[in-house]
Amino acid sequence: MVSQRSLTIDTEKATGTTYVLGTELTVNLNRCAPPQSKSFSIKCGPNVHYKVTSPAGVRSAAPYPLTPNSVLIVTMDTVSETANDSKLSVRYYGEKTESLGDAVLHLTAVEISLDVDADRDGVVEKNNPNKGSWKWGPNGHGAVLLVNCDSETTYKKTLDSEVDEINKVSDLQDMSKMILRTNGPAELPEGYKLTMHISQTTSENVRVFRPRTSAKKDDVWKHKLLKLFLKDYIMVVGTDTLTEEVPYLGGKTELAFFVEGLRFPDKDFDGLVTINLSLLEPCGKGFPETPIFTDTVVFHISPWIMTPNTLKPVEVYVCSTNDNYTFLKSIKNLVDKCGYKLKICYEYMNRGDRWMQGPDFGYVTRNALNEKVSSLDSFGNLEVSPPVTVNGKSYPLGRIIIGVAFPTATRGRNMTQVVQDFLWAQKVQEPIALYSDWLVVGHVDEFMTFVPAPDRKKFRLLLASPDAGYKVFKSLQKKGHGEAEMFPGLPEVISVNEILSDKKLQAENRYVQNCIDWNRDVLKKELGLDDEDIIDLPILFKVLEEKTGPRAVAYYPDMVNMIVLGDQLGIPKPFGPKVNGRCALETEVCSLLEPLGLKCTFIDDFAPYHKLLGEVHCGSNVLRERSPFRWWNLEL
Amino acid sequence: MVSQRSLTIDTEKATGTTYVLGTELTVNLNRCAPPQSKSFSIKCGPNVHYKVTSPAGVRSAAPYPLTPNSVLIVTMDTVSETANDSKLSVRYYGEKTESLGDAVLHLTAVEISLDVDADRDGVVEKNNPNKGSWKWGPNGHGAVLLVNCDSETTYKKTLDSEVDEINKVSDLQDMSKMILRTNGPAELPEGYKLTMHISQTTSENVRVFRPRTSAKKDDVWKHKLLKLFLKDYIMVVGTDTLTEEVPYLGGKTELAFFVEGLRFPDKDFDGLVTINLSLLEPCGKGFPETPIFTDTVVFHISPWIMTPNTLKPVEVYVCSTNDNYTFLKSIKNLVDKCGYKLKICYEYMNRGDRWMQGPDFGYVTRNALNEKVSSLDSFGNLEVSPPVTVNGKSYPLGRIIIGVAFPTATRGRNMTQVVQDFLWAQKVQEPIALYSDWLVVGHVDEFMTFVPAPDRKKFRLLLASPDAGYKVFKSLQKKGHGEAEMFPGLPEVISVNEILSDKKLQAENRYVQNCIDWNRDVLKKELGLDDEDIIDLPILFKVLEEKTGPRAVAYYPDMVNMIVLGDQLGIPKPFGPKVNGRCALETEVCSLLEPLGLKCTFIDDFAPYHKLLGEVHCGSNVLRERSPFRWWNLEL
Repeated sequence: MVSQRSLTIDTEKATGTTYVLGTELTVNLNRCAPPQSKSFSIKCGPNVHYKVTSPAGVRSAAPYPLTPNSVLIVTMDTVSETANDSKLSVRYYGEKTESLGDAVLHLTAVEISLDVDADRDGVVEKNNPNKGSWKWGPNGHGAVLLVNCDSETTYKKTLDSEVDEINKVSDLQDMSKMILRTNGPAELPEGYKLTMHISQTTSENVRVFRPRTSAKKDDVWKHKLLKLFLKDYIMVVGTDTLTEEVPYLGGKTELAFFVEGLRFPDKDFDGLVTINLSLLEPCGKGFPETPIFTDTVVFHISPWIMTPNTLKPVEVYVCSTNDNYTFLKSIKNLVDKCGYKLKICYEYMNRGDRWMQGPDFGYVTRNALNEKVSSLDSFGNLEVSPPVTVNGKSYPLGRIIIGVAFPTATRGRNMTQVVQDFLWAQKVQEPIALYSDWLVVGHVDEFMTFVPAPDRKKFRLLLASPDAGYKVFKSLQKKGHGEAEMFPGLPEVISVNEILSDKKLQAENRYVQNCIDWNRDVLKKELGLDDEDIIDLPILFKVLEEKTGPRAVAYYPDMVNMIVLGDQLGIPKPFGPKVNGRCALETEVCSLLEPLGLKCTFIDDFAPYHKLLGEVHCGSNVLRERSPFRWWNLEL
Repeated sequence: MVSQRSLTIDTEKATGTTYVLGTELTVNLNRCAPPQSKSFSIKCGPNVHYKVTSPAGVRSAAPYPLTPNSVLIVTMDTVSETANDSKLSVRYYGEKTESLGDAVLHLTAVEISLDVDADRDGVVEKNNPNKGSWKWGPNGHGAVLLVNCDSETTYKKTLDSEVDEINKVSDLQDMSKMILRTNGPAELPEGYKLTMHISQTTSENVRVFRPRTSAKKDDVWKHKLLKLFLKDYIMVVGTDTLTEEVPYLGGKTELAFFVEGLRFPDKDFDGLVTINLSLLEPCGKGFPETPIFTDTVVFHISPWIMTPNTLKPVEVYVCSTNDNYTFLKSIKNLVDKCGYKLKICYEYMNRGDRWMQGPDFGYVTRNALNEKVSSLDSFGNLEVSPPVTVNGKSYPLGRIIIGVAFPTATRGRNMTQVVQDFLWAQKVQEPIALYSDWLVVGHVDEFMTFVPAPDRKKFRLLLASPDAGYKVFKSLQKKGHGEAEMFPGLPEVISVNEILSDKKLQAENRYVQNCIDWNRDVLKKELGLDDEDIIDLPILFKVLEEKTGPRAVAYYPDMVNMIVLGDQLGIPKPFGPKVNGRCALETEVCSLLEPLGLKCTFIDDFAPYHKLLGEVHCGSNVLRERSPFRWWNLEL
């Protein structure tokens, strides 16, 4: 729709205004006519075009009869070379066609366009008709914006988004480009100016920078960038600055801006950011200026996205501690074999935290103001499924999986509400809440993971299963291996017969199987899985009596807590009973996974991880290639 | 989709469970089979049905071969008469079809349905398939809920929603009914129980009550209601109570609940409320119970909705003060003439506030925590348009209109963000922000209103217009009435000639016309109006020099600030120059409005309202019939 602006003209005094190409000026001729006017005629220069609407919609020959709804519509199609170089005048006539006066209008035409990459092809195109709105989906549109949540500096780190200025030229690459294109006379008529403005709310989510010195050509910026004149960048609008004049450079020019996202979408923020550029007209001495033209662009801040196990790894992260040398060596062997990069985080950096999962990333934090923070807020309790389609609804980026207390529990630990709200607000990987509070540590990665598969949905869900565990032990007993020893060579050594005769352990594992089955049913429903998509891994648990009730830990290294590197799996070594020199639990797991083309490497994490209630997956992290699916193509 | 539940059975010990009609029990037969099982057969009672899925989907004749994915699916279609009165057993066979054991399952079947009025016909139907979701639009569905924001008591008022208990039987009528329908044996098997539960977030938005004493028939409740045994109602879930057991009454019974909305939709609340009812199964001594069946219902809390001037009035509200007797009499005459009810709010109640616009309503407040509250937060600055269609998008309830500072202003007053956020969150009357900060009082009703009309869009937008005002005065001068007096008989008396020779007043009004025209352009665009839909009323303003800049007030009573009662308009008497004994401003306004079938009554509000910077509209309120359009039928 063409933007219209109402204008008053006057027979007593000439009116001057600035016209923006592509808009329409409307003049209510009756309202500003001298009393007793009956008709009017119009004269104008060659660059000015007009039409007259009568209430009946009839376009009559000049002079036009004046009616209560006579509206004059003025347009121009060429920019002015100097201020006020175009003109239009209206002559009013009385009853006997005597002239009652001339209303003169002086016009300056300019072109103004605030531009973004609304079609997301990497080029900031001119005046995209969709630049002011956002639409999800493959036929959608709208510019995108990153949250600048990494840190360009290595020491004395702060989040880039927490600094009001640009520190490194590389920081500009974390921002989206926006261009102000103007065309017109060397200077605007006196008193006119350009202003960029954002709302109070938007100022919490975004900052806009521009080069301090203005210049006429975009190439000059590129040149400047190379020279790293970073102090030449100033903030235009953002925190505490909602509106700021920007220079009109004259002639045909482009002024580049860099837009920095400050916040991910959240419960109270849908991710949309609106930036406006207005032309202000002076209103006479002592009166405030009026915005007579506003151009608006919209960005959608990129959601926070997780990468599932089915994506190709790039780099593996693991911490070095004073007791995990052998573990590190096994991980290094595995990663080397796969041909990925291993990044070891040394003690001066991890400060003894073996669960810390990787330095030098963008990151995001939420503060739990009035809430208790618990073990469920750790990120072994935050996983993501591979892409799925559920009842016809597609999740091409997968679904986030977290663990909480039973919804029916009167007490229990939960992931803090601020983190849950944050995860749900990302929208592109709609979360699933599982029940994990039955575990001492309380993480979903203690009973589930995903591995790639060549068939069906291209993955399998692996679940820890005490039933499957008991079946292995019963089978050993039946085959005469009842005296075979679990934990061979370790102080915890115990025979198959002893395990099977422990009624308490059996009752505990029946309870654990119940808990996992509840999650199995949720996962089947929410990921659209069949039983054939799920593999039960033989894992037993034991239950500890905690102050707040019984809670479970893995009885032997929890094989489901594995690291998945393409078709190579790094699995916690279970130390099961040996039959013919081979661990029966490893044999069972290999027989379940190898038919899928997966290769199992069992890694000893017993002392440095298992005994501290974690395993391989808890103690490592994997940077993966991003999904080939672009988040904005989601149908929401 | 049918709800499935995974279940483990065991050859060593019989398993008992409770089955809910309409669900499926799934048993992974391989996982719980004795070692070396090769096949199995199934036996069951007449009320139990089963099927077996093989990986290839083949249904074979018994005994079935056991495969890694042999899953047994159990259903029942009749409720049990006593606990554990149905049975199914699985026999496993070895290589040579020798029996390896029987796994026995005892079953109790019950029917459970938490019900709401999801089709909004006033009846809580049984198990509506859409009860757990919400969909906007004429083909939508979902139960609705009021915010209990009125007060049933007359003295010592508090909002009903701020009280944890039910005070009056009429309060139940502000709540939505929800029914728990159960059918089954007289008692559930030992250890099973029913629990109602909501999330932490939901507990801030809703409370659920039920009669304290349980009874078998819904009529009993009705009986009780009549008896006003109100202390017999207890809160089940709500503030500080997220989960609570509810009684299982046995046999075929209905238990009524009353659901009370506590909060309107807001920036951080989409208005959706979820309530769950679960059946808990005991898990063995010392272990927490597991929810084995959950029924979920969803309500959408009704948005806060305004009524436009085009809706039929019911009652008019006005305050009595020590100086407005004549004004009150005029209003009373007008209201009587129209046949509506007038409610006068006396001084003991209004405490001298003549702008207070009506007692005994539901109301809602927002607290501005860190924001300045200004005159723009008053509700002459909060209006609503009649129904409109804009570029094909329909707003059948109209659009809310508020006034703020120019978006480009570096300083200025705004309606507080919390109120703006609240208004936008209602969604059904998407707001329009106008520029009203140019006025001293700063209210949109100082320059605009809507009146009904028989043609076009069924209404006209009336705008104050200094240009139209000057045209009237110039016309008087031209016709020889230059000496006619404005404000005749009042100390402010001034001639037409004097007004027209005041150059300062002229410059001020040019500025004001600019400000109003900016709003005119916004309203044309956002309400899809043509110039023919707008009528300019002849009103002049004057500008006062305030500390923070120049701001305008009406020069004479602001006729656009009128009360609209059907086709009767109560318009502030302008005290314009008299020609042939009749006020020229009144004549002009009548000539503009009477052709639309509107009747103009001019009401003297000069001393008690105009001099205090308000007029008729600011000093009155109108309760109107609700729109015939139901908000849930909106396409959002």
